[in-house]
Amino acid sequence: MRKHIMASPIGVVRSPWTELRGTPIQPVFAEGARGRVVVDPEYAEALTDIEGFDRLWLIYWLDRVGPFRPLVTPYLDDRAHGVLATRSPTRPNPIGLSVVRLVERRGCTLEVADLDVLDQTPLLDVKPYVPRFDAWQGRAGWVDGAPDATTRDDGRFESEPGSHR
Amino acid sequence: MRKHIMASPIGVVRSPWTELRGTPIQPVFAEGARGRVVVDPEYAEALTDIEGFDRLWLIYWLDRVGPFRPLVTPYLDDRAHGVLATRSPTRPNPIGLSVVRLVERRGCTLEVADLDVLDQTPLLDVKPYVPRFDAWQGRAGWVDGAPDATTRDDGRFESEPGSHR
Repeated sequence: MRKHIMASPIGVVRSPWTELRGTPIQPVFAEGARGRVVVDPEYAEALTDIEGFDRLWLIYWLDRVGPFRPLVTPYLDDRAHGVLATRSPTRPNPIGLSVVRLVERRGCTLEVADLDVLDQTPLLDVKPYVPRFDAWQGRAGWVDGAPDATTRDDGRFESEPGSHR
Repeated sequence: MRKHIMASPIGVVRSPWTELRGTPIQPVFAEGARGRVVVDPEYAEALTDIEGFDRLWLIYWLDRVGPFRPLVTPYLDDRAHGVLATRSPTRPNPIGLSVVRLVERRGCTLEVADLDVLDQTPLLDVKPYVPRFDAWQGRAGWVDGAPDATTRDDGRFESEPGSHR
């Protein structure tokens, strides 16, 4: 039997990207794109001291992508790979992970840059980016040889109109 | 009204760490600790080509930590910070994020090292670690000046006995 896990959004991402098409596929291709992470007021105290970090992890729910697809041709390549070996959004649990630059904190609003997240995306967690924990070098499989085919969304992972996950 | 989000585990983490106390608090303090990520067979195809990556992100549900605490004294420091400005587990949504070394793939079993995850933890997602997307330097707030007080769990975030999240 499968145990389900219930999460609740802790806020919302506001961004210039209102539809999948044209949205940068990763923060590294979104340089300068500004937006806001609006955390619910009940979590205000939980943000204490976050302003000391240059970058933050955003963990969010990709609520406007299509259903799970085991094999995908990711944006950066012209060959198919297992979706769990890519950062493509049609995952079994559509959880997004992005590192963004923290520009300013105003209360529960985090002004951020290098934002690749769709407007109105439900936020599940914010974590500080800690280079000592998070920065590694090494082989990156198919990505290392990929042609960087596409760096903006072209609609390939869209859900049917009106169907949100 | 709060919209709930339903996720389903895609597998389980098997590790030498069977209780919180003594578990390394981050992969960087778990060097060499081996374990397995056992992905459900229905996602076998979704793992295609994952063996090319030196490191993987594991995203999982911290099912044995206590309830949300806005302020925590994290393992590495002797002062309190907002939990969202730490990597401590008593988060609004107890989502864990760890980068581990991929040693070998055997079908749906990923043999990994540098594992800081409790045995039997429900797995929500696996993503390839891509240095170009994920490796950054920069200020890490309170962590930069912290005394590295503790690198193994000492029970401070335990739930009541028998209460799982």
